[in-house]
Amino acid sequence: MSKKIVVIGGSAAGAKAAAKARRIDGSAEITIIQKDPDLSMASCGYPYYVGGVFDDRAMLISTPTGVIRDPHFFMNAKNIIARTSTEAVAINRIAKTVRCKNLHTGVSEEIPYDRLIIATGSIPTMPPVPGTEFSGITTLQSMKDADYLRKIRDEKKIKKAVVVGGGLIGIEACEALHLAGIDITVVEMLPQILTFLDHDLALLVENHLRSKGVNVITGNGVASFLGESGRLTGVKLQNGTELDCELAVVAIGVRPNARLAAEAGLAIGATGGISVNQYMQTSDESIYAAGDCVEITHLLTGKKIHAPYGDLANLQGRVAGENAAIGNTATFAGTIQTGICKIFEYAAGMTGLSEKVARQEGFDVLSVVNAGPDKPHFMNGKLLVTKLIAERATGRILGAQCVGPGDVAKQIAQWAIAITGKLCIEDMVAADLPYAPPFSLAIDHGIATAHLMQNKMKGRLKGISSAEVFQKLQRGEKPLLLDVRGPDEFEQMRIGAGEVLVPLGALRKRLNELPQDKDREIICYCKISLRGYEAALALEAAGWRNVHVMEGGIAAWPYAREK
Amino acid sequence: MSKKIVVIGGSAAGAKAAAKARRIDGSAEITIIQKDPDLSMASCGYPYYVGGVFDDRAMLISTPTGVIRDPHFFMNAKNIIARTSTEAVAINRIAKTVRCKNLHTGVSEEIPYDRLIIATGSIPTMPPVPGTEFSGITTLQSMKDADYLRKIRDEKKIKKAVVVGGGLIGIEACEALHLAGIDITVVEMLPQILTFLDHDLALLVENHLRSKGVNVITGNGVASFLGESGRLTGVKLQNGTELDCELAVVAIGVRPNARLAAEAGLAIGATGGISVNQYMQTSDESIYAAGDCVEITHLLTGKKIHAPYGDLANLQGRVAGENAAIGNTATFAGTIQTGICKIFEYAAGMTGLSEKVARQEGFDVLSVVNAGPDKPHFMNGKLLVTKLIAERATGRILGAQCVGPGDVAKQIAQWAIAITGKLCIEDMVAADLPYAPPFSLAIDHGIATAHLMQNKMKGRLKGISSAEVFQKLQRGEKPLLLDVRGPDEFEQMRIGAGEVLVPLGALRKRLNELPQDKDREIICYCKISLRGYEAALALEAAGWRNVHVMEGGIAAWPYAREK
Repeated sequence: MSKKIVVIGGSAAGAKAAAKARRIDGSAEITIIQKDPDLSMASCGYPYYVGGVFDDRAMLISTPTGVIRDPHFFMNAKNIIARTSTEAVAINRIAKTVRCKNLHTGVSEEIPYDRLIIATGSIPTMPPVPGTEFSGITTLQSMKDADYLRKIRDEKKIKKAVVVGGGLIGIEACEALHLAGIDITVVEMLPQILTFLDHDLALLVENHLRSKGVNVITGNGVASFLGESGRLTGVKLQNGTELDCELAVVAIGVRPNARLAAEAGLAIGATGGISVNQYMQTSDESIYAAGDCVEITHLLTGKKIHAPYGDLANLQGRVAGENAAIGNTATFAGTIQTGICKIFEYAAGMTGLSEKVARQEGFDVLSVVNAGPDKPHFMNGKLLVTKLIAERATGRILGAQCVGPGDVAKQIAQWAIAITGKLCIEDMVAADLPYAPPFSLAIDHGIATAHLMQNKMKGRLKGISSAEVFQKLQRGEKPLLLDVRGPDEFEQMRIGAGEVLVPLGALRKRLNELPQDKDREIICYCKISLRGYEAALALEAAGWRNVHVMEGGIAAWPYAREK
Repeated sequence: MSKKIVVIGGSAAGAKAAAKARRIDGSAEITIIQKDPDLSMASCGYPYYVGGVFDDRAMLISTPTGVIRDPHFFMNAKNIIARTSTEAVAINRIAKTVRCKNLHTGVSEEIPYDRLIIATGSIPTMPPVPGTEFSGITTLQSMKDADYLRKIRDEKKIKKAVVVGGGLIGIEACEALHLAGIDITVVEMLPQILTFLDHDLALLVENHLRSKGVNVITGNGVASFLGESGRLTGVKLQNGTELDCELAVVAIGVRPNARLAAEAGLAIGATGGISVNQYMQTSDESIYAAGDCVEITHLLTGKKIHAPYGDLANLQGRVAGENAAIGNTATFAGTIQTGICKIFEYAAGMTGLSEKVARQEGFDVLSVVNAGPDKPHFMNGKLLVTKLIAERATGRILGAQCVGPGDVAKQIAQWAIAITGKLCIEDMVAADLPYAPPFSLAIDHGIATAHLMQNKMKGRLKGISSAEVFQKLQRGEKPLLLDVRGPDEFEQMRIGAGEVLVPLGALRKRLNELPQDKDREIICYCKISLRGYEAALALEAAGWRNVHVMEGGIAAWPYAREK
């Protein structure tokens, strides 16, 4: 008799698990139970549909060759029964059945399983404040949300919107609505947007958002939604500010949708996600779970976390599907929390641990910031700002963040594989990467970043972060800020904090103009602090003992400038 | 007394070594001896200057902020003496001096060194055939060559050119001259262009070149250059073909310029490159060498090879410069021969070993070809065709090649780091890479390729390469070719070798139309062979025993098609 595999959820993890189970077992009876009317939705694509990057809604639910992934497709192409608009309401682990309710007819029935895969996804969090019932407040989590926001885009009636939450979805929603011609304010309760980044890099992204005309408010949450006649008219913030708006997109996070699993008595972790082992198997050996409803292991901290990413959902679904079909043969070890986000002309990516989190987790770390182009200047190279985090004693790479208009995705991909391979800085300083001028610098930005870290580990580069310099200035300290760029560059852009300009090419001849107290703190920088580094070495060779290089130079300075 | 460091050669490796030595030792006396009039030329940029990607020649020899890297710059910014138009004619290892000749004045002098770094680069090979003395024959190796070809572009007089050699430089020259409006024929003596690729992937690049109007001739070398009154008029090939042309760019390879080192009695390797240890130190402990003039270790085979790449030259120069300055502390282990090349809308990249070379080196390998988009269809994803090579017993990744209009550089960078980390297929099947629709698929192309390899290792994917299918057809074998795409796709493009079309969605209902001999060989495919794989599994589930999937589908089929 053929094995009965039932999958609850037909989006990323569920659809993938069902398809993989079919590939492994040609004769199993495989059923997907899907509450939504659609299947296998490309939910990460919603912001791009809303923003008008593409106009054909069907693309979100069709194969690359244009076939809609509906129950007919699942039956014909994959021999999988897909029951859409059908809610799984209870799991009976003794009888091994799932009670389902057809949302159109209201009819319930029990579907038997030999192996069950739970892929119930996540639920967007709503802030616990008054007014969430007003119309004009939405999330960007479902096809319904995408349809709603796309209609708003197409109707061009709404002028102002507030995006509540400055995480990945919030920032993607911000860009989409801005492209739709709507005035956007992003409100983030924490002191920065994109909390997977350290504060200094997040500020660079905030600056880019502001340069596009987006209003960004951090350190200030929503106190209440304001409305008239049931319709949203504004948002009141915790500091009392009121923002007029006709639309609010709430994107303050999601939590695992683990209710069904919990009610069935399956173990639930501290994050609220379903507990699974490396086989994606729950506390019931007949039941697997995958995707946004589970918690998984962070491979660098060993801790369980909720990591609701579409790519991980697919990878977990593949493992759950295989194991449900033939027993525990495939494994999913965990995540290093790699992520990326497009923000107008910028991208912001991250893999591993941020410096902040690494320190919280007790790692003794070194970090370095490197700014530089992704390609040669004659190939129109674009800026990348990378922050690299390594374990001080071993040089093991713990994390990397990268933002800017350059090819961030490649940088983060490189670091992600390096972390997967447990590589150290010494492994990366002479990495053999694909070089040709259309694709990278002769010394790739990532390798150059490893060089800086190596120089720092060897005590040669005495770096100081822009944040530390800023704090020094805030505290009223008076280090000598030595800008070693050219006069034309200084004219175009400068910090304006009392810095002295001595171009690198003139520095060795003009050392007499510098303070002759060799213990005076001098902070050197240029555009990206390569010349700044050479200047610091020249000063040290000439006897100055308290010289630092401001990492990343002006390109990575995220604070206010004179010009 | 300050240490005297002399560097022979002021291009990539030499300039980098000098700069690094200065950063390590602020008081050393550092001298570069450079035969050319220019320093620190971005030689990999020549094809893009010739092709008009940029027009400002100075960009090839200036910093990103526009400062020309001339002797003044080296002195002022780096405190390095750079003697240009000065040839090093002999090394006296006993006296520790280099004899130099000023090419303008003819005056010779002896420059003493404590540490010497040889970075004399490589010399382009000319074919040993009659007629190489005609004007109109050039290489693309020097600023002079670049100036010559750029002038040809700007004058728009020449109509036809032959590029001799289908390697990286030849293909880049081909694109540059084609962009200049010149009719191009590429002549390659070997059976394929870009010999770092396996034959099947190289054919895809050839097809792309032909689609741009480039004439590609393989398996046919140059027998002689033809000319009149001292000017090139054509090229005669080994098979007797005569090609009219007014210009020939010779790019059949380079050899290490190790004459000076050899004359000084330094050990030279079998490749003709200077022998160095991991510290980039020659057989004389006071002399280092770096860049195109040395031979280095291939990290996968352990063999010494000549790997004349600009990125490696820089990395080696950095190591030689450090060690010359403070003794042997930095190391350069070797190369995995990562490379990439832009070819009109395509890129072609490679890291590690090709299947052919891996087999020659005695590895027991599995290979798999995967075709698929780099991004979702709704984000205008572009095709990538990857061939992955792994050790059969362990799954250790030995090599990857990728071609196509998609983001090849990121794929190759990922595989390069994976090889650096000695990763296996199992490490890559659940790699946590940066995913968002503007940057990749939910299951990245590279991960999907690892999935295919895993399926192959587990015996689930019974793949057959397009080359094997082609050979079967050539031999007159009659496997059933089963195309499982849609009728519209079949109308647009098909192999036309007697294949049967049964769309995947209809396959399970139409099994009766297939040959009922369950041992009949059936080869399934679709556009990229994802549906082809599902079709094969459906046939196996229905009892067929001799079913294969043509890897990469029609997208990776490099041979002639009906349409």
